[in-house]
Amino acid sequence: MIKVGIVGGTGYTGVELLRLLAAHPQVTLSSITSRKEDGMPVAEMFPSLRGHVSLAFSAPEKARLDQCDVVFFATPHGVAMSQARELLAAGVKVIDLAADFRIKDSAVFEQWYGMPHSCPDLLAEAVYGLPEVNRKAIRTARLIGLPGCYPTSMQLGFKPLLSQGKPLVNESALIADCKSGVSGAGRKAEVHTLLAEASDNFKAYGVSGHRHLPETVQGLQAIAGRAVGLTFVPHLVPMIRGIHSTLYATLLPEARGIDVQSLYEQHYADDPFVDVLPAGSHPETRSVRASNMCRIALHRPGGGDLLVILVVEDNLVKGAAGQGVQCMNLMFGLEETMGLMHVPILP
Amino acid sequence: MIKVGIVGGTGYTGVELLRLLAAHPQVTLSSITSRKEDGMPVAEMFPSLRGHVSLAFSAPEKARLDQCDVVFFATPHGVAMSQARELLAAGVKVIDLAADFRIKDSAVFEQWYGMPHSCPDLLAEAVYGLPEVNRKAIRTARLIGLPGCYPTSMQLGFKPLLSQGKPLVNESALIADCKSGVSGAGRKAEVHTLLAEASDNFKAYGVSGHRHLPETVQGLQAIAGRAVGLTFVPHLVPMIRGIHSTLYATLLPEARGIDVQSLYEQHYADDPFVDVLPAGSHPETRSVRASNMCRIALHRPGGGDLLVILVVEDNLVKGAAGQGVQCMNLMFGLEETMGLMHVPILP
Amino acid sequence: MIKVGIVGGTGYTGVELLRLLAAHPQVTLSSITSRKEDGMPVAEMFPSLRGHVSLAFSAPEKARLDQCDVVFFATPHGVAMSQARELLAAGVKVIDLAADFRIKDSAVFEQWYGMPHSCPDLLAEAVYGLPEVNRKAIRTARLIGLPGCYPTSMQLGFKPLLSQGKPLVNESALIADCKSGVSGAGRKAEVHTLLAEASDNFKAYGVSGHRHLPETVQGLQAIAGRAVGLTFVPHLVPMIRGIHSTLYATLLPEARGIDVQSLYEQHYADDPFVDVLPAGSHPETRSVRASNMCRIALHRPGGGDLLVILVVEDNLVKGAAGQGVQCMNLMFGLEETMGLMHVPILP
Amino acid sequence: MIKVGIVGGTGYTGVELLRLLAAHPQVTLSSITSRKEDGMPVAEMFPSLRGHVSLAFSAPEKARLDQCDVVFFATPHGVAMSQARELLAAGVKVIDLAADFRIKDSAVFEQWYGMPHSCPDLLAEAVYGLPEVNRKAIRTARLIGLPGCYPTSMQLGFKPLLSQGKPLVNESALIADCKSGVSGAGRKAEVHTLLAEASDNFKAYGVSGHRHLPETVQGLQAIAGRAVGLTFVPHLVPMIRGIHSTLYATLLPEARGIDVQSLYEQHYADDPFVDVLPAGSHPETRSVRASNMCRIALHRPGGGDLLVILVVEDNLVKGAAGQGVQCMNLMFGLEETMGLMHVPILP
Repeated sequence: MIKVGIVGGTGYTGVELLRLLAAHPQVTLSSITSRKEDGMPVAEMFPSLRGHVSLAFSAPEKARLDQCDVVFFATPHGVAMSQARELLAAGVKVIDLAADFRIKDSAVFEQWYGMPHSCPDLLAEAVYGLPEVNRKAIRTARLIGLPGCYPTSMQLGFKPLLSQGKPLVNESALIADCKSGVSGAGRKAEVHTLLAEASDNFKAYGVSGHRHLPETVQGLQAIAGRAVGLTFVPHLVPMIRGIHSTLYATLLPEARGIDVQSLYEQHYADDPFVDVLPAGSHPETRSVRASNMCRIALHRPGGGDLLVILVVEDNLVKGAAGQGVQCMNLMFGLEETMGLMHVPILP
Repeated sequence: MIKVGIVGGTGYTGVELLRLLAAHPQVTLSSITSRKEDGMPVAEMFPSLRGHVSLAFSAPEKARLDQCDVVFFATPHGVAMSQARELLAAGVKVIDLAADFRIKDSAVFEQWYGMPHSCPDLLAEAVYGLPEVNRKAIRTARLIGLPGCYPTSMQLGFKPLLSQGKPLVNESALIADCKSGVSGAGRKAEVHTLLAEASDNFKAYGVSGHRHLPETVQGLQAIAGRAVGLTFVPHLVPMIRGIHSTLYATLLPEARGIDVQSLYEQHYADDPFVDVLPAGSHPETRSVRASNMCRIALHRPGGGDLLVILVVEDNLVKGAAGQGVQCMNLMFGLEETMGLMHVPILP
Repeated sequence: MIKVGIVGGTGYTGVELLRLLAAHPQVTLSSITSRKEDGMPVAEMFPSLRGHVSLAFSAPEKARLDQCDVVFFATPHGVAMSQARELLAAGVKVIDLAADFRIKDSAVFEQWYGMPHSCPDLLAEAVYGLPEVNRKAIRTARLIGLPGCYPTSMQLGFKPLLSQGKPLVNESALIADCKSGVSGAGRKAEVHTLLAEASDNFKAYGVSGHRHLPETVQGLQAIAGRAVGLTFVPHLVPMIRGIHSTLYATLLPEARGIDVQSLYEQHYADDPFVDVLPAGSHPETRSVRASNMCRIALHRPGGGDLLVILVVEDNLVKGAAGQGVQCMNLMFGLEETMGLMHVPILP
Repeated sequence: MIKVGIVGGTGYTGVELLRLLAAHPQVTLSSITSRKEDGMPVAEMFPSLRGHVSLAFSAPEKARLDQCDVVFFATPHGVAMSQARELLAAGVKVIDLAADFRIKDSAVFEQWYGMPHSCPDLLAEAVYGLPEVNRKAIRTARLIGLPGCYPTSMQLGFKPLLSQGKPLVNESALIADCKSGVSGAGRKAEVHTLLAEASDNFKAYGVSGHRHLPETVQGLQAIAGRAVGLTFVPHLVPMIRGIHSTLYATLLPEARGIDVQSLYEQHYADDPFVDVLPAGSHPETRSVRASNMCRIALHRPGGGDLLVILVVEDNLVKGAAGQGVQCMNLMFGLEETMGLMHVPILP
C-alpha cells in the first residue's frame, strides 16, 4: 500500500483527491495538513466524505509527511516549492497540483505568478505530469508538476497535429477558445464567482493574458519541437465542473489531404484516458463529469482548411486530481487506470 | 422631483434601488456614498447601469446627504442607526433597508443582531415599512424600517387569516417553510454562496434560529393583536432571485366553513402589489422576477383543516428595494405604483 | 455472476442503473431493451458510458429476458405488470422501478395512476423494496416494487418516530414539505422542465394531490401499525439531482422528554445507507450526490414541540436505481453495500 | 397609437414582445393569435403578464389582423411567408421574427430551411431589420425580416472592421465562436434543452453547419461589399438568456497601425443600442439582461495581429423582440429608443 500525504486539503482539488484516493485499492491516506483546521475531521468540512475518510486535518508540524511514500500539494502557488526539497531528501515523491513546477523558465514563472522561485534547480528535475506526453519520464520521476486544467485540454487537443515530423497546420496562429466551470477558480471567497454573480451569465476573462498561456505554449513547443504561437481566450461558464476547449488550427496547403479523424484515433489508440469520438460528434462536458476521461471530436466545417477541435474534460479530475493519481500510478508501477475508472455522472 | 441619496450602493439592494430609481419619473438621484469606492462611477462597478446612472460614488463626508429629500440606507446592519438622527434633524426622511429599525424592542434587536442599539428612542417613531399593513402610517412617517425579505412574504401570506376579529387558525402553531435565492445573502465574498457550492444543491439553514423570526412574529402579532407562535425554516435555492414561502396553518373547528379563497381576494382587492391567484394555482418565483409584485395561492389538500398558502416575491424588489420605493411614493404623496409597474422578466 | 436484464434503459433511472451495474463486481449486464432504439449501442445515446457498457439496445422479443437472473423495469407505469408474471414463471426475479407494485390496494392504484391493474394477485406477493423497513422480506422476494423517490425520503425520515410501540407525535397531522431536482420528472420532452422554464425559478406543484401521497401513507401506516395523516407538498428545485424533505411532526405531551437525536442514531445504527448527522446539522443534497446514502438531521426549534426533520437523498440513487441494486444485493445474498459505496461528488 | 397584432404568441419571442409592447407608450395591443389556445387569456399562460396584458389568444380567422397597423410574426419558419402578401395588400406592415425574409436567395433559404419559399418576389422588397446597418431602409419598409440572434451579434461585432473602404482584416478567414443561453432554442418540448440535460453542462453543436451561417455571411458581405469567409461555431450555455460571441479576425499587415478601439467608438457613436466598452473590458451577458443593448469590447492579445472582439446581447431582446420594436419605432417615425430603455436586470 502506498502511504499518501496531502498538503492543503480544504480546496476543490483537495477534496477531489480525497474522493479518488479514499477508494483507491493501493492507497492508505496517511495524513492531510491544514494549519487552520488542525484537529477537525475532514468529513466535518466535507460531509460527502463521511464514512469514507476518517482522517482529521493536522498542523503541518504534526503530520510526519516525511514518512509518506508520496505527498500531493493541493495548495496555493508557492507552497510546494518551499517544502519539496526536504521531502525529496527524505525519499518522498512529490506531486504538485499548483504551478510551482510547471514552467521550466523561472523568469517566466516569476513574471506570471508574481513571486520568486525558491528552488529553480528542482525545476530541471521536475517532470511535467501529462502522461499522454511524458509517460516514460513520469514513471521514474521523483517530482511532478501537474499541468493546469486549461493546458491539459489544449495540449491533448493539439498534440496529434503538432507531434508529426513536419508541420500540418499553421503553428504560429493557433487559437484556443476555452470555457470552464467555476470550480476552476477554486474554493475561495470571492465576489465574481458567487452564484448570484456567475449564474445565468457568461463572460470572457483574462483575454489580455492568463497564466495558463505560457505553460501551454511551453508544452506545445515541447510536443512540436518548434516554435508555436497561441491565442488563448478563457471564459467562465455557469456550471460547477467541466472544461470545453474549442481549438482552431489552419491546415497548411500540403496537409489538406490528411485524414485528421484517423490521425487522432491512431494517435490516442493506447491512451486509456483520451477518447476520440466518431466523426461529427459534439462532446458534452457532462459526458466526463467526475471522471478522468478526456473526449475529443474533430470538425472541418465546409470542408475548408480550418480545423475545429472540440475537447472536454473534468477540470477537477483529468484537469487536476485525477491526473495526479494517474501520475502516481505510473510512478509506483501500478496499472495506469487503477482507481480511476469511474463511470461519469449523467445526468 | 425628489432628491434621493443612497448610503451604501455596492450591494444587491443598492444596485436594485439604482435600477428602480434611475427610471422613476419623480426622482433625481443626488448622491450615493461609498468610502471605499470614492470617485468611481457607479456604472463602472455595475455596467448594467451604463447610460442610465451617471453618478459616481462619493465618500460620505462629501455627499451632502443633508440636502436630500430622502436617504435610503442599503448598508449592513448598524449603519443607519448611527446616521439617522442627524438626517432627520436636517429634515431628511430616512428609509433603512437593513434591520436597524425593524424590531421595536431594542433588547430583542441586540440579542439577534449582536450589537447595542444606538438610538432606541427612534425605534418608537420608526414605521415598519410594509404598506399592506401600515399604509396610513407610512404616508406621514419620517423614518422607515423596511421589512426583511422573508418577513414580507410571511406576513403577506398570513395576514388575511390573522387580521380577522377572532382567530380562524391555530395561531400558536404556524409554520413557514421558506425558500430563497442566493441574492438574499448579499454581495459578500463568502464560500457557501459560491456557484460551485450553492449550485445544483439544496439545503436548509438557520433552523435553530434566524433573525427574521422575531421580526416576523412581531409583525404577525401586530396584525393579529394576539400572541402568535411561528416555526420558520429557511432554505437556500440555487437561483439568483426569488422567495417562495410555503405556509401552513390549521383551521380551527369553528372556521372550517370559511371560503379562504374569497377571504384573500377581498382582503387584497385594493393592494396593487398583492395578486391572489385563482384557486388551485402554483405561483412560480419567475412570475414576479424583477417586479414588485407578490403572488399568493391557497390550497386545502384533501379538503382537510390544514391550509397551505403559497407566496412568491422577488426578494430584491418587494422584499427590499421595490418596497422601499413603494414607501417613498407614499411618503411623498405620489401614486403608490409610480415607477414600479415593470413587467416581470420571463423567461 | 448475476445475469441482469433491463427493460427500458433510455430514461434517467435506466442510465443510472447502467452506471451502477456496469461497475458492480457480481453483475453481468445481459440485455437492455428498447423497441425504438433496437440495435443502437447504449453508449451512443449516453456517451458517459463509452468504455463501460458495450451492450446495444435490443427489441424486447430478441432480448431473452427469461434467461436473466433478475430483470429491472425502468419503464413508465404499466409495463412491468404486463410482463412480470411470465418472467416470474421462468424463474426470473423482477425489480420494478415504476409504481406497478408499490400500492397494495389495486383500487387506489387505479385511482391515482389512471389505469387498471392487470395482475392484482401479484400485488399480494410483491415486496415493497425499502430495505430499512423490509430487509428480511426482500431477501426472499421474487418481485419487488421499489419505492418512489419522495416516499423513500419521507418514510426514512419519519420511521424512527412512528415505529415505537406507542405514538410519540401527532400522527394524524404530519407534514412533508419536499423539494426535488428536475431529474425526478424523468427524461421526457416537456415544456415545464426545460432549462429556460425551470432554471432560476422555484415553485410548488401537485399540492392538491400527488401520486406519492397514497404510497407514503401506506408505508407510514405499515411502519406505525396505526392510521397516519400526512400533508405532502412537493416543490421543483432548479437542480439536476437531489431531494430535500423537510418534515414536521408535533411531539405529544407525554413524549416531550425524549432524546430524539439518540432515538434516530440508535434506530439507524445498523443501516449502512442512513446517516444520522450530529445535532444541529443541515444536510445538503450535494453531500449525497451520485451516492446511495440518505442523511438525516433533527431540529427542535426553540425547544418547542415541533420536530423538524431534514432528509436528503439522491433521487436517482437511493430514490431509484441505487435502492434497486441494494434490493438485488439482498435478494442474491450479497453484501448489501456491494457496488454502492461511491463517494458522493462534491462539488 | 399603433395598433399591433401578433401571430403566434406562445413562444419566448412572443412573450418577450408582449412584455415590451405592453409598456410601450405608443402601442395598443390589438390581437394575438393562436389556434390552439383560442380564448385563453394570455396572462393565464404567462402569469408574469397578469395586470399588464388583458388580451386573450384568438383563432386567426377571428383576429382581424388586417385592421392592425403592424403585425409581428413570432412563429415557426414558414408561417409569415404564407400570410404576408395578404396583410401587405391590406396596408398592414409586417415584421417577421422568423427566417422567412432574412435570406435574399430563395434557393439558399430552401437548402437550409428545408421548405420552398412561397413568395420569393417579396424577398426583394423585404428589408433586413438590423437598424445599425439598414436604418434608412427600415424607415420606409413595409416588410421586415428580422435578423437571427447569433447573426445580430456577429454582424454588429464585425461591422466596423468590414465597412471601411479597403479590407483591414483577412476577410476570408473570420471566426465566430458563439455561446447562447437555451432560450434561443425556443419554448419547445425537447430532451436536449431539459434542465437535467443542459444544466451543469456545456457543448458545441451544429459545427458542420448552422442556419445562421448563410444569413450572417450574406449580411457581412453586404456590409463589406466584398466576399467574406466565416467559420461559425455555436455552443449551448446553461443559462436562460444571453449570447456571447467571441470573434476572431487577423489584421492585414497594412492595417497593423490602426486604433481599433477608436474605430469602434466612432463607428457606433450615434447608435443608441451599441455600447463600445472601454479598452480591456470583458462584457458579461447579464450586463444586458432583459434590455435591447449590445455591448462590445476589443482585445489584441500580446499586441499581435489577431483581434478578439467580444460581443454580448440578450438573444430575446436585441436578438429578437427588442430589435423588432426598434424597427417598428423607425417604421412609424417614433423615437428609435421608445419603450426600449429598460435598465438591465442585475443580478
